[in-house]
Amino acid sequence: GPSNSEGAGKVSLLKKVPALKDGDFTLAECTAILLYLSRKYNTPDHWYPSDIKKRAQVDEYLSWHHANIRANAPKTMWIKVLIPLFTGQPLPSEKLQEVMEGLSTSLKQFEERFLQDKAFIIGSEISLADLVAIVELMQPVGVGCDIFEDRPRLMEWRRRVEDAVGKELFFQAHEMILNIKELSNIQIDPQLKEHLAPVLMK
Amino acid sequence: GPSNSEGAGKVSLLKKVPALKDGDFTLAECTAILLYLSRKYNTPDHWYPSDIKKRAQVDEYLSWHHANIRANAPKTMWIKVLIPLFTGQPLPSEKLQEVMEGLSTSLKQFEERFLQDKAFIIGSEISLADLVAIVELMQPVGVGCDIFEDRPRLMEWRRRVEDAVGKELFFQAHEMILNIKELSNIQIDPQLKEHLAPVLMK
Repeated sequence: GPSNSEGAGKVSLLKKVPALKDGDFTLAECTAILLYLSRKYNTPDHWYPSDIKKRAQVDEYLSWHHANIRANAPKTMWIKVLIPLFTGQPLPSEKLQEVMEGLSTSLKQFEERFLQDKAFIIGSEISLADLVAIVELMQPVGVGCDIFEDRPRLMEWRRRVEDAVGKELFFQAHEMILNIKELSNIQIDPQLKEHLAPVLMK
Repeated sequence: GPSNSEGAGKVSLLKKVPALKDGDFTLAECTAILLYLSRKYNTPDHWYPSDIKKRAQVDEYLSWHHANIRANAPKTMWIKVLIPLFTGQPLPSEKLQEVMEGLSTSLKQFEERFLQDKAFIIGSEISLADLVAIVELMQPVGVGCDIFEDRPRLMEWRRRVEDAVGKELFFQAHEMILNIKELSNIQIDPQLKEHLAPVLMK
């Protein structure tokens, strides 16, 4: 309603466009789309194993992922590139530090609870869990926070994912993220900046 | 390592106990457990429909849920009951207000994007999506923040979920959450309080 226009604006600002459209059917949310495609195209079993325990391990990771990796990693991009781009102002460095600390805690759990000494998250074969994880973890890399640098175990896992996916496809898929700093050259309408700044600086 | 003992302590403080144990197999994460049980016991189709579009809608909700409802609703319990219990100090009321605002935005999206004018999240039948949602949304209710009060559409959905699950089972399942304020009568070791306070007040 009109009495709540500011709140509604915020919601629609954050509203995601559906990322998959299959005829009349639209679907948002990365993990839901991957699961849908794996079922529709009957992809090789290892992506989402029919063994119910292995499958449960993928589900367990995906659930944890949302509240941890997904809750931290993309913030680096907002802080280092998107918010400064839209507001014209850099954010205080403590903001980034706070996010990097949260991300460190998540990465420690990722290594100790999920990766352990396995090749991939659920064992010897790559699954949707690894894909969902790597896509999110390349975001800090793209904005200059190389979280793999001091984490040899994580780096070895990344190499295995690159090999399993194919290096060419891997870098093609991450091209936009790895070049996101180029966005900084874009000019934003000053009026839009003025409108967005108070919302984004919160 | 010993150089990082404070960080490690924080991680283990937040580490979840596995909530399902099936022989040697342990599983954490509410949604992963529900999916595992639905497969293992071959529960009625409506919980996680074999129709791939319906199933994708459950997955879409579950993914959104983690970053929205799950990210907000349980904080009410931490702020109103658990943190005061462990630290002996109430939190400033702005903390609760901030969480309630985040929750309001999530609930608005829940109604407009997911519930719409349907009986349940994915249509005319109850699914795992409704179960996962209701369990989280009863947490604010348990600590005195009745989010259903001013939201007739949400309240009608809750009544339908209660009926579908059976009222007796519904209240049995939520008994602990609805009585969580009784925890306040528990005495916590003063030394433990002293140790936890700085961690929990952050």
